[in-house]
Amino acid sequence: MALSVKNNQTIVLHSGGQDSTTCLVWAMKKFKKVLVVSFDYGQRHKAELAAARIIAKKLGVKYEVIPLPFLGKLTKNALTDKKIKVKTGAKGRLPTTFVDGRNMVFLTVAAIYAKQKNIPNLVAGVCQTDFSGYPDCRDDFIRSIEKTLRLAMEFPFKIHTPLMFLTKAQSVRLMAKLGGMELLKYTHTCYEGTRPACGKCPACKLRSKGFREAGMEDPLLKAC
Amino acid sequence: MALSVKNNQTIVLHSGGQDSTTCLVWAMKKFKKVLVVSFDYGQRHKAELAAARIIAKKLGVKYEVIPLPFLGKLTKNALTDKKIKVKTGAKGRLPTTFVDGRNMVFLTVAAIYAKQKNIPNLVAGVCQTDFSGYPDCRDDFIRSIEKTLRLAMEFPFKIHTPLMFLTKAQSVRLMAKLGGMELLKYTHTCYEGTRPACGKCPACKLRSKGFREAGMEDPLLKAC
Repeated sequence: MALSVKNNQTIVLHSGGQDSTTCLVWAMKKFKKVLVVSFDYGQRHKAELAAARIIAKKLGVKYEVIPLPFLGKLTKNALTDKKIKVKTGAKGRLPTTFVDGRNMVFLTVAAIYAKQKNIPNLVAGVCQTDFSGYPDCRDDFIRSIEKTLRLAMEFPFKIHTPLMFLTKAQSVRLMAKLGGMELLKYTHTCYEGTRPACGKCPACKLRSKGFREAGMEDPLLKAC
Repeated sequence: MALSVKNNQTIVLHSGGQDSTTCLVWAMKKFKKVLVVSFDYGQRHKAELAAARIIAKKLGVKYEVIPLPFLGKLTKNALTDKKIKVKTGAKGRLPTTFVDGRNMVFLTVAAIYAKQKNIPNLVAGVCQTDFSGYPDCRDDFIRSIEKTLRLAMEFPFKIHTPLMFLTKAQSVRLMAKLGGMELLKYTHTCYEGTRPACGKCPACKLRSKGFREAGMEDPLLKAC
């Protein structure tokens, strides 16, 4: 089996946001062939999926949405339930936008999808520098799930996380260097799901801080 | 959060088979409260889920089926596709009954379900002694996913696998000692989905070998 492993191909996990779009452009420089997957887990803002679809189309890569409705049904969080308010985590607590097990489910399902195509590479836009209090965005989690996936399926999975140790400002500069800045106008970040973005939720604030520190203007704001 | 963790409660993952039924009876002796979950992933033989439901009812424990249709759709295997024949793994190959990532998905989803109820314990009937060539039944996989789950959700998950190092004969003797033998007549093991069991598929052969070596009669055969 090892001989037919397609080491020059990758799956990019795409949320429709700024980070996964930067990762997608990064992956297109690094790999010969790129496939994009998103997950419909019952998130309130379908704008995320629409954004991912548009971006994949602009780049001419195959795009697939995998429905995972159980995730939104099992968990209680502000991203799938509009009755729960968006709140950053108070001391020792997780933010209300944290979806239990989300990245673990996403990476596991993406890996199953990838293995059927003999593709060992997965690219994810997780980042522990500005990690918003999400434990499943940290490097120790990624290294642990990579090992677990290999053991589970006897397949040489490799998870690439090009943004892991970058600040938001460094991510913005990376995208500029990769020549993909214009694509960011199609991305969706806002937790409130509005367009133009609300500018006030934790996700909007983090995004605008990154552009401000990089000394660049957000193409999303220009587009609105 | 740590104070409200319910260490005396557990979730048992139930396939409707002999091993998870033995684990369920084991868990009922060890924990104060037990909840049972099964997964509908598109398996051809719904007899498995019917068996799990009957057994949970006999024991008076809460039972829930979580639908995971994506798993059967994404993977190619003999358990979800009747066009694929049941075959044991030839040298260096996995058996056709292996469902890529199945136990990783099951344990992840069960952990998400458990965390919503503040329950840290999961019981799974995996076993590496007679592991049928499934990598996700081995102890190194279980230890790895336990660590990954803890990191993903910052919750003190513990995966219990009472059958991990037992032979099938030892599992049969354990069930006899626990006083649960009669329950095994409701279990479903056969890959062909027939009742009485076909007696010829790898799962039936493994089961009958266990009873033979334990010097006991299988209650399922008496019941048919």
